[in-house]
Amino acid sequence: MEKRKPTEQAKLPEDVVVGRNAVTEALKSGRAVNRLLVAEGDVQGSIREIVRMAKENGAIVETVARSKIEAIARGYRHQGVLAYTSPVDYTPLDELLAMARAKSDAPFLLLLDELEDPHNLGAILRTADAVGVDGVLIPRRRSCPLSATVAKTSAGAVEYVPVARIGNVAQTIEELKREGFWVIGADMDGTADYYDADLTGSTVLVVGSEGRGISRLVRENCDVLVKIPMLGKINSLNVSVAGAVLMYESLRQRRKKEGEK
Amino acid sequence: MEKRKPTEQAKLPEDVVVGRNAVTEALKSGRAVNRLLVAEGDVQGSIREIVRMAKENGAIVETVARSKIEAIARGYRHQGVLAYTSPVDYTPLDELLAMARAKSDAPFLLLLDELEDPHNLGAILRTADAVGVDGVLIPRRRSCPLSATVAKTSAGAVEYVPVARIGNVAQTIEELKREGFWVIGADMDGTADYYDADLTGSTVLVVGSEGRGISRLVRENCDVLVKIPMLGKINSLNVSVAGAVLMYESLRQRRKKEGEK
Repeated sequence: MEKRKPTEQAKLPEDVVVGRNAVTEALKSGRAVNRLLVAEGDVQGSIREIVRMAKENGAIVETVARSKIEAIARGYRHQGVLAYTSPVDYTPLDELLAMARAKSDAPFLLLLDELEDPHNLGAILRTADAVGVDGVLIPRRRSCPLSATVAKTSAGAVEYVPVARIGNVAQTIEELKREGFWVIGADMDGTADYYDADLTGSTVLVVGSEGRGISRLVRENCDVLVKIPMLGKINSLNVSVAGAVLMYESLRQRRKKEGEK
Repeated sequence: MEKRKPTEQAKLPEDVVVGRNAVTEALKSGRAVNRLLVAEGDVQGSIREIVRMAKENGAIVETVARSKIEAIARGYRHQGVLAYTSPVDYTPLDELLAMARAKSDAPFLLLLDELEDPHNLGAILRTADAVGVDGVLIPRRRSCPLSATVAKTSAGAVEYVPVARIGNVAQTIEELKREGFWVIGADMDGTADYYDADLTGSTVLVVGSEGRGISRLVRENCDVLVKIPMLGKINSLNVSVAGAVLMYESLRQRRKKEGEK
């Protein structure tokens, strides 16, 4: 049961778009869509065209119970379709790589494996801007996408750091290796302390999720695993803190290398 | 107007204690109190004794409008007195220094100047535990004290890192210098990049507030001011990230120095 706008209606989160027209307009305008939800049984007619455009846009398309869309739409007329949009455009990976190479002989990329918390993603983007990271790669699935919360926590950095959506993480790592990147994973069981590893050169730094770190398959694909020494009683760092420590150590080493030339 | 417990009553935050008996008990048990609020005109009789104990405890005592206490007490019987307690005890500064010296020839302390956000304080304590910081100094006034939110964000580190409350920051810095500490302030206008400064030895690292950095007077009292390079468009780092980058660089330098021995 769809309701027309009730008198006292909760506002929709700013990155949620509902209804066939609004979603179509968002897609036509080229606005990046993270996820499209379609109500079960509704994938026909104009919705079929919306699904096609969403897939072309790079969005994840999910068929869900009508009640789920109902709950998120908060009484707004949704017509069985709802989209989560991104506050900024993603950069296609090949374009990101070309830009990175044009900027530097030794690009520095960050790959986030299954990061789930938008505050951590925002904090990491803020630091990535400060360090001059050439691009951030986030998986399309099982990872926090760019959102209004991410943009806010990033203090605006989301506007400046190129972010690419990627498919399979292990495959992307293989491709990047073929492109000449050295892949460094941050892992509690890493063999080297991070400051003893060479973090200069064309580098992809892989940082994992808040709870579990990087996944096994991804770990096995890294060229080297580095750990951050933990001297205290607590056994993990916040992921945005761990990322910052590693990114700034890379910057320190790069600056030092430049100075030695 | 005090209300007896209404039927549907909002729970008090876990670090708030209200009413003469409850506050007296908290103080007698030795539980650390950050702040005692007393209603105007009520400082007599048993309240006078509570104020005396609170001052001895190290708490800030404030006389406020009765309506302010009323609002915080959410209908609980407050009798004109309300205390904000700390989840763990503070360590007296002299005790903290003695412990630090017993542990290390070159203690590493962190002084937080007017940090206001409990999430940032918690995040910093979590990293301080990981780095093996010997103690954290926080000013009694105009700074976020230890609280339930700090404890939660610290992932439990609040139980392990000794925290001392200090009075005047500039005076404390002078004392620490006399005790042989080298005082390093983190400042956007610092003269050296942080990785070019010697962060080993008996060190106090001073990190400032989220918005304003360290205050002018405190800045003038530091032996050296270091900056973190910012290569991007955003002009500041999150304070817990900045603190982590500096703490881990100190650890890196200390480890390297030990390795050279």
